[in-house]
Amino acid sequence: MKNDKYEGKALHIRVKDEIKQAIKSGEYRINTKLPTEADFCELFDVSRTTVRTALNQLHVEGYVYKIQGSGTYVADNKVKQSLSATVENFNTQLQSQGKNPAIKVINLLVVPSDEFISHSLRIDNGSPVNKLERIRYADETPIQYEVAYLPWNQTPGLDRDACEDSLYSLLRNQYELKIKKTVEQIEIMLADSFIAQMLEIEEGSPCFMIETEAFLEGGQIIEYSKAYFRGDKANFIIERSY
Amino acid sequence: MKNDKYEGKALHIRVKDEIKQAIKSGEYRINTKLPTEADFCELFDVSRTTVRTALNQLHVEGYVYKIQGSGTYVADNKVKQSLSATVENFNTQLQSQGKNPAIKVINLLVVPSDEFISHSLRIDNGSPVNKLERIRYADETPIQYEVAYLPWNQTPGLDRDACEDSLYSLLRNQYELKIKKTVEQIEIMLADSFIAQMLEIEEGSPCFMIETEAFLEGGQIIEYSKAYFRGDKANFIIERSY
Repeated sequence: MKNDKYEGKALHIRVKDEIKQAIKSGEYRINTKLPTEADFCELFDVSRTTVRTALNQLHVEGYVYKIQGSGTYVADNKVKQSLSATVENFNTQLQSQGKNPAIKVINLLVVPSDEFISHSLRIDNGSPVNKLERIRYADETPIQYEVAYLPWNQTPGLDRDACEDSLYSLLRNQYELKIKKTVEQIEIMLADSFIAQMLEIEEGSPCFMIETEAFLEGGQIIEYSKAYFRGDKANFIIERSY
Repeated sequence: MKNDKYEGKALHIRVKDEIKQAIKSGEYRINTKLPTEADFCELFDVSRTTVRTALNQLHVEGYVYKIQGSGTYVADNKVKQSLSATVENFNTQLQSQGKNPAIKVINLLVVPSDEFISHSLRIDNGSPVNKLERIRYADETPIQYEVAYLPWNQTPGLDRDACEDSLYSLLRNQYELKIKKTVEQIEIMLADSFIAQMLEIEEGSPCFMIETEAFLEGGQIIEYSKAYFRGDKANFIIERSY
């Protein structure tokens, strides 16, 4: 590996990328042990510090995990989710990656909308809304916690069990409400204690936060939601055509 | 603010959301001082710890900043960038938000492709590639560092100065290479010392990492790039129609 002055700066990035590439290509397989730090030092002709930095980053990014006294292992793949328009639903996307999907309803309540929610849903302050909290799992690992708000007068009698499947299918089939457009905003946030508990991660772990507004054909907003995705497990894919 | 057992868990989230909403609505304006912690305690009828947690999160998420001995202030808005197909370019998007955009070329070199890059670009190992490193600024704040690789035989004589504007326009105008499709993967990573230096943030700050493959009409890949966005400054928007 070339190690001139400029390249030196990013040396551990290159080590990281090469290991990541070997993981992605299947050279290092899931749940098998990686070569030791000393092996990597020799393989890439770099210092122990460089290898350690590269491995730490791969750990934070979810590519490897460590077992005390044993070594570093290849983690299970991240869950890829498409954010493009022609989107298959969560279950289909996960199944195509050989993962077992599940949605669990944590809470479903009718509550009066507070100022923030009434503003988001363009309804009167205090109007009743369905507040739906769910966790999505891939192979029993929680990857997403979400809380969705829907105007109650459009979605009366929302069934808790039915929400353990696609919400948009339910809206279409039970209420004849067809989602025409969604607008999503993606930001990074650090898990607070509540989110950390929901997603079974350490407080302060970086997460994706996706805020979604879903609109009906007539332009009326039917859902406002916030979803928190584990940063070490989520990988979003966007395809654009020009 | 209601404070029953369940709601209590997420109390600081609600405080955070209310303050965020007041910032977004313009009630608290950019670069003005927020009410004190004590004021917020009284306003929301919550503990000092709850207010502090909420303000800390707003800080990490880039909505507020702190001045030692003075208090907490409203930060400048995040830079919103659309990831939808009908996308205006970086400069146009920033200008529409009243921000002054700039692109600075850090490095432009012709280098032999290593295994990772040759694999990504589907070219022979060692074939020459243009390696282009750029930083994008909004009002003189670095928000994005990117490194792009393009096969040299398709883009010979790439001009450094010309790269301080849209690369895709340059490819179209100078080389008659028209981008037809891009595939982007979004992940979270923590800034290492190099990225931290490029983006003027602390090491370990969470960033978006977007890996892009750009394809020509015939399906040939013309660019592979990695871009790192400051988590405290970036907000991506995705619109989908169904």
